[in-house]
Amino acid sequence: MTKKANGFDKARFISFEGGDGAGKTTQIQLLNKKLLSLGIKTYLTREPGGSIGAEEIRSLIVEGESNRWDPLTETLLHFAARRDHVIKAVAPALDEGLWVLCDRFIDSTMAYQGYGHGVSKSIINSLCQFVVGNMQPHITIILDIPVEVGLERASVRMKSLSDKQKIINKEDRYEKMNIDFHDRLRCGFLEIAEKNPKRCYVVNANLSSEKVNSEIERILVTKLGIQFNEA
Amino acid sequence: MTKKANGFDKARFISFEGGDGAGKTTQIQLLNKKLLSLGIKTYLTREPGGSIGAEEIRSLIVEGESNRWDPLTETLLHFAARRDHVIKAVAPALDEGLWVLCDRFIDSTMAYQGYGHGVSKSIINSLCQFVVGNMQPHITIILDIPVEVGLERASVRMKSLSDKQKIINKEDRYEKMNIDFHDRLRCGFLEIAEKNPKRCYVVNANLSSEKVNSEIERILVTKLGIQFNEA
Repeated sequence: MTKKANGFDKARFISFEGGDGAGKTTQIQLLNKKLLSLGIKTYLTREPGGSIGAEEIRSLIVEGESNRWDPLTETLLHFAARRDHVIKAVAPALDEGLWVLCDRFIDSTMAYQGYGHGVSKSIINSLCQFVVGNMQPHITIILDIPVEVGLERASVRMKSLSDKQKIINKEDRYEKMNIDFHDRLRCGFLEIAEKNPKRCYVVNANLSSEKVNSEIERILVTKLGIQFNEA
Repeated sequence: MTKKANGFDKARFISFEGGDGAGKTTQIQLLNKKLLSLGIKTYLTREPGGSIGAEEIRSLIVEGESNRWDPLTETLLHFAARRDHVIKAVAPALDEGLWVLCDRFIDSTMAYQGYGHGVSKSIINSLCQFVVGNMQPHITIILDIPVEVGLERASVRMKSLSDKQKIINKEDRYEKMNIDFHDRLRCGFLEIAEKNPKRCYVVNANLSSEKVNSEIERILVTKLGIQFNEA
């Protein structure tokens, strides 16, 4: 069968969201492997960052003290980085017909800065409209996991780093925050999913990575009308 | 007479705007000298920048190639820097009763990114509302000068720098832009003044610095009810 018959001819933009330790990186890798095996060209990226300029802004955001920026300043930095990322990386990749798999996108800003830190959701929605416009993901996979399980996974990952890597890894700011904060994040992601039922799919991430991957593939089949097993 | 009788008891926020070579720095220094001579405590600051975090964002904005950021990304970076500047520097200074003299503020973003680079004025106004809210300057002095005169002054200033200073001065991006751009800036500032008649005062800056300073002092006397000569 041709790529067209399998539904792979159109470029797709898929974002992966969820709290720390939810398994976004693993799931992106598993889906990417499957897509590549089917001859689909992919473009893996992340936020904040994903373009040269946005990675520079990312450094301002993630390094230094956790209270370095007030939540609205941080939100504006995220949207500045996002604008650069969208026009320099995401849009060109989609124009080339690639499948873009993005580790965090708009919903992380709403969850972390909005639900987590109390920035006005109306301001975040306006910024999203100004910056992203119609460039919303076709599908957003929200990996849902109990807060304690996610933080335990993130903690194990941190412990497995060498001392040198730990010094380099200055980006664990959110993992240091309290359980209440992470509870607000989780509830935020679930509420975002409720409000965007056509785009967002919540996946139980408290299962083996293979099972989570199967569920994600099932969602893509249903939502995009593609056929993973008959290429 | 007391500070109160002279009208100097209230903290004031005064911004200075205008194109390159309009004489903002000189006029801020002249006004500052007068205020200090009257026992008024001042706080001199600038945008983009003016706080530790905002100066870091400024570096991202002003260094590198002039097309490094698209105009909307640059606008968002300006507002991120502004938010940090306002809450970490301007608001605390006003709370302490200081007179804040600011070299560029919201109107420069509207003039450069809006009128100059075509970013939606409605988006800039919304960002201004989100970030600045009621923290608008009490008075904005717009120094108006013919484009050719301003660019000639800026050019002379650049030539007077040593070679070493020229290497350090990586911030002359706007001066390199074409006359059309600077014409749009000038018209932009004049239109902003028309739209904000209670806050903005256009001053002819194509005069000696002493005459321009006298006009600025006259405006402050009229607008704020202060008396410069009877302290």
